[in-house]
Parts: sequence; structure tokens; C-alpha cells
Amino acid sequence: MPWGRVTGSMSYPKVDVVFDMGNPFLNRTVDGFLKIGAVGASKVAAEETYHCIKRGGLSKGKVEDALSKMCKEGFYWGTVAGVYVGMEHGMERIRGTRDWKNAMLGGAITGALISTASNNGRDKIVAHAISGAAVATAAEFLNYLT
Amino acid sequence: MPWGRVTGSMSYPKVDVVFDMGNPFLNRTVDGFLKIGAVGASKVAAEETYHCIKRGGLSKGKVEDALSKMCKEGFYWGTVAGVYVGMEHGMERIRGTRDWKNAMLGGAITGALISTASNNGRDKIVAHAISGAAVATAAEFLNYLT
Repeated sequence: MPWGRVTGSMSYPKVDVVFDMGNPFLNRTVDGFLKIGAVGASKVAAEETYHCIKRGGLSKGKVEDALSKMCKEGFYWGTVAGVYVGMEHGMERIRGTRDWKNAMLGGAITGALISTASNNGRDKIVAHAISGAAVATAAEFLNYLT
Repeated sequence: MPWGRVTGSMSYPKVDVVFDMGNPFLNRTVDGFLKIGAVGASKVAAEETYHCIKRGGLSKGKVEDALSKMCKEGFYWGTVAGVYVGMEHGMERIRGTRDWKNAMLGGAITGALISTASNNGRDKIVAHAISGAAVATAAEFLNYLT
């Protein structure tokens, strides 16, 4: 693990069904949001650094612009990852098994949710759900391969 | 594992360095190509099925068109995955450790290679390398989270 866990897990009592269901779900979502959000922000930082080196010069406006882009992209990556991690965990709970189908279903729901939140039409939502499912399945398979 | 291993591993002698280096590398690459290629092809199949259901009617031309798209996209996804798996494995061999930096470096090299193969300019190659590194790192982090 590159970073330590940011979200501490509460010592919830096993009797309380709501806590048992709700808390690991929230923990993972926040964890996913922070970690993948950081990756998204780093990507923009790397891109902006390359552009600055190439064009030369560094003004206050450029730095502010880069920071704003980092926040936006980091937030977007984080949201997608948080929703996906939560959905994948939810699928595992509902289906009761751990396999690549959880990733596929989680990816499909994430794609559809993010697309719905962006006010897309039905066709686009379906396309994004299919893409989400495919990307999540591919990422899951790559786990086993690498 | 959803499918059985397609590539059998030869019982290579440990004395031969070339075989020891070369073979698992090739095995993984072919494995990645076939599995992720199949995911890419399935994605197109799902998309085309949705379009057919929506618009109705199924002609010979449409099926041929869908099959051609499946082959193209499957080949593209497979190539990216094959190169990535090979590169990630290569990084592991060179660096001697297993961590998220292998994924990052493997993703960056894959992005740059695929971009170079598509005859892109230097700026695009750098952009694709950064994107590849970010996506691979994010996928690696998601492993730990899900």
C-alpha cells in the first residue's frame, strides 16, 4: 500500500445489521475517492508540468489554472472510483461470492450512475454502462495476469 | 479465473537464461491479449446488440459490420493489454520488487508505445504515457480496495 489507510474502521458490534452493512461500504468509498482522486490529480499535475517545461515560463495564472484542473479531474476520478468501489462491495454482499462478475456489474452500475448524474440521454447511459462494465472486467482480469 | 489458461507453460530448464526470461513474458502477453481482447470484443457485441434491439431489424450487412467492429476493438484492447502485461512483468524483473510503481511504469511505457505505433507526435506520446501511467496506477490501487 502506498499510503496508510485514511479511513479508520470503527469497532462496530456484529449484532447491528445497519452498522455492519453501512460502515465498510462508506469506508471503502471514501478510501477509493481519496486514493484514485489523488491519482487523477497527479495525472493533471504531470501533464501541466510537461506543458510548462515545453513552453517555458511559469505565471501565477498558469499555476492557478493547473490547480483548478487538478481539483476538477481529481474530484471526477475520485467520484467514479468511490462509486465503483462501493458498488463492487455491494455486489459482493448481494451475490455472496467474489468473482469477476462483481466487477462487471459494479462497473456497469457505476457507468450508468455517473452518466445519469451528467444528465445524459438513455442511449448514452447504456453506452456508458457497457463501457464501465468492460473496463472494470478488463481491470479485474489484469489483476490475475500481473 | 473465468477461463482456463490458454497458454501452456513449457518446462524450460532453469540453466537457460534466455528461456527463463523470455517464456513467462510471452505467455503473459498472449494470455493478456486473448482475455482482454475477448472483453473488448464483448463490449462491442453488447453495444451492437443494444442498437439492434432499439432500431429493430437485423440485416446481413449489419451483422458483418458488427463482427468487423468486434475484431478491430478486440484486437486493439488485446494489444494494449498484452503490451501492458508484458511491460509490467518486465518492470518486475528489472526492479526486483512487486509494487504499484511497476504498474505505473508499465502503464507509461505501454501508453508511449501504443501512441508511437499510431504515428502520433511527441506531445501526444507524452500525454498518452501520462494517461497510461495514471490509469494503470488507479487500476492497481483498486485491486487493494476491492
